[in-house]
Amino acid sequence: MTAPAANLSAADYAHTLAVQARKAGLAMAQVPGRVRNDALKAMAAGLRQRAGEIVAANALDIADAKSAGLSAAMIDRLRVDEKALGKMAASVEQIAAQDDPVGQTVWSSVRPNGMRVERRRVPLGAVLIIFESRPNVTSDAAALCIKSSNACILRGGKEALRTNAALGDAITQAVASAGLPFSAVQMVTNPDRAVVNDLLKQVGLIDVAIPRGGESLIRAVVEQARIPVIKHYAGNCHVYVDAGAANLERMARDICVNAKCQRPGVCNAAETLLFHKAVADRLLPLVCADLAGQGVEVRGCERTRALFPAAKAATEDDWRREYLDLIVAVRVVDSLDAAIDHINTYGSAHTDAIVTEDVFAAEMFVARVDSGNVMVNVSTRFSDGGEYGLGAEIGISTDKLHARGPMGAADLTTTKYIVTGQGQLRG
Amino acid sequence: MTAPAANLSAADYAHTLAVQARKAGLAMAQVPGRVRNDALKAMAAGLRQRAGEIVAANALDIADAKSAGLSAAMIDRLRVDEKALGKMAASVEQIAAQDDPVGQTVWSSVRPNGMRVERRRVPLGAVLIIFESRPNVTSDAAALCIKSSNACILRGGKEALRTNAALGDAITQAVASAGLPFSAVQMVTNPDRAVVNDLLKQVGLIDVAIPRGGESLIRAVVEQARIPVIKHYAGNCHVYVDAGAANLERMARDICVNAKCQRPGVCNAAETLLFHKAVADRLLPLVCADLAGQGVEVRGCERTRALFPAAKAATEDDWRREYLDLIVAVRVVDSLDAAIDHINTYGSAHTDAIVTEDVFAAEMFVARVDSGNVMVNVSTRFSDGGEYGLGAEIGISTDKLHARGPMGAADLTTTKYIVTGQGQLRG
Repeated sequence: MTAPAANLSAADYAHTLAVQARKAGLAMAQVPGRVRNDALKAMAAGLRQRAGEIVAANALDIADAKSAGLSAAMIDRLRVDEKALGKMAASVEQIAAQDDPVGQTVWSSVRPNGMRVERRRVPLGAVLIIFESRPNVTSDAAALCIKSSNACILRGGKEALRTNAALGDAITQAVASAGLPFSAVQMVTNPDRAVVNDLLKQVGLIDVAIPRGGESLIRAVVEQARIPVIKHYAGNCHVYVDAGAANLERMARDICVNAKCQRPGVCNAAETLLFHKAVADRLLPLVCADLAGQGVEVRGCERTRALFPAAKAATEDDWRREYLDLIVAVRVVDSLDAAIDHINTYGSAHTDAIVTEDVFAAEMFVARVDSGNVMVNVSTRFSDGGEYGLGAEIGISTDKLHARGPMGAADLTTTKYIVTGQGQLRG
Repeated sequence: MTAPAANLSAADYAHTLAVQARKAGLAMAQVPGRVRNDALKAMAAGLRQRAGEIVAANALDIADAKSAGLSAAMIDRLRVDEKALGKMAASVEQIAAQDDPVGQTVWSSVRPNGMRVERRRVPLGAVLIIFESRPNVTSDAAALCIKSSNACILRGGKEALRTNAALGDAITQAVASAGLPFSAVQMVTNPDRAVVNDLLKQVGLIDVAIPRGGESLIRAVVEQARIPVIKHYAGNCHVYVDAGAANLERMARDICVNAKCQRPGVCNAAETLLFHKAVADRLLPLVCADLAGQGVEVRGCERTRALFPAAKAATEDDWRREYLDLIVAVRVVDSLDAAIDHINTYGSAHTDAIVTEDVFAAEMFVARVDSGNVMVNVSTRFSDGGEYGLGAEIGISTDKLHARGPMGAADLTTTKYIVTGQGQLRG
């Protein structure tokens, strides 16, 4: 990596990174899969070999975070030890072992005049990833961009500045030693917020920004960006217990509890449960009692409170909330249609599940719920690139354009039409 | 169509259209392909049956355009006669006959825990199309949106207001008679520019805007939009005559002339020709003489002017120009790399062609030219949805995200992950 000089202004620093990324991206488009995979293997080896200095840099960040009074949860997310580095390296090796996402012909046609039209999968070019403290994103994001023949610019949280600098150094050295362009992976080492804002305006040089973190980070990125952004703001996920769940008491209880409680602080945890009126009398009290037994606060509509008096009264605001906590909103609905309308009105288009044995209800739910992930008789917690078998994920999209749901390496590609002929002219 | 009341403010009118489109879009997701195709056939029949009133409405628009002093070319683009309506109807019937772009499983995996993960092609939802005077866009755009199970809002040029109102009335009546939602196709009948600007801000209701027209229209849309936009600004297309074209004199001459002259006013016409120095001495004067013979003004670099003295001097600005006219910029380059760099620096990432018999040069050009359409030994004029066999096109994208190149019905879809299980929980 030829790092921009330290004395540049934020605007010049950002522009220099972007120009280098554009150039590296064009060169990356020609790098064969074998070379990219060798670079990934070198990167995994580098992470293991340089564990000592990375952990030492991390200790400095952790010490600062403690003095700054960061929460124990945030410090935990920031921590990198030898075991964590081993996992990061293993993830990079798994990405190396995946099929090459670029170069495939996704559509082709030989036209009556003899010319061949082919739509081929090609890299996007330059990808900007903006993330908060988890340092494992650094290696996953770099690896997925290399796998998909993209150049990348990585901007981590300022709490992890020294950790990311050490990781970035290990990664870029490994990648360059394997023959990739020097600027294929660039780490933003200037923590000035103005650099990010300038990077987000490099139209024509950076092809997409992918922010990962809390809703306020994502909103700030969208607000500043003039380049395309792929994002998800929040996960207000639902489990709907259908009339057709009358014989599925065990499954309804297990899925609701798993979706809410197994890891409440993540985006694919359930926030609202909906019960069809035909099964609410029997199933709602059982599910709510299970949840209360796990320490969950239940906030319900009038009908919920009649069936489960311990519930607090839910307000309109509760239907929109992503609690990320042991709180759940519960509502009784009159029909499948009402459940779908509730989800499409209040949800975040992330992940929504139905519990039913009625195949027509399942079909209707799948067709009409306008979310990136729709689950039938499965916990919402499975909405994840790893669980889907995509390998590591670069993020999750609740957008509809380009990519939707968990995003793997193939989602970092676009297509190009290639037309080959023998001198055809248009008449 | 339940048209919004005429006395609404621009903001309320736009919001009403958007709410209706969102609702219709959700309903369209469930409409079977047979019903959508029947609606398209009814639409084609409606265009033919109501030709009299549409042509009469068009005559009023044409009369106004003449009084307003519009150019003959613009009036020509505005004109709709019975023959044009017949072509529009035939195009709609062709779209009806295409394969259904929605519902396909594009990827699937059965996970070790037995759950099935499927990525299925689904409609986007609600599409806003903003276009200038050509009324045939009205029927093509409506038909492609219906084919892809989307609701649409169509906003044509104000010169064609009465023509589009008559077309819209014929289309929406036909569509509703076939059983589609009333608001599946909505025509913006209020010419106030504020309505468009408000429509472009309906985040969560309208899923994408596709502007079609001149660069100033597109820039205004991008500037105003808070919803995603798929677009192309301009077509600064290149033909590069490679060192490997030494034995392809006839092909080089024919492709350059066809790309520049066959229809100079359109986006896939060539604007700049590049010659490798090894063949420039012999081929450049022949090609330039051919072009001059067709009335083309040649603007060249120093080396071009030495070989073809009739050429005017090109400035830096000429390399960036989309002339849309009988003018061409010509440059001699030292290498294939220099040609690729020129195209990636000055081009518009639309369509670029190489003429060569060198397979390695062709491969390098295809891999490194960062454009949506790359042609080998074919005229740039073939960059077109119809020529590619996609059927009618909703537009052309020079963006990289979501869709790139000519866009057919399949480009109006997104995907959704559908996960089906038997009560799986995450551990």
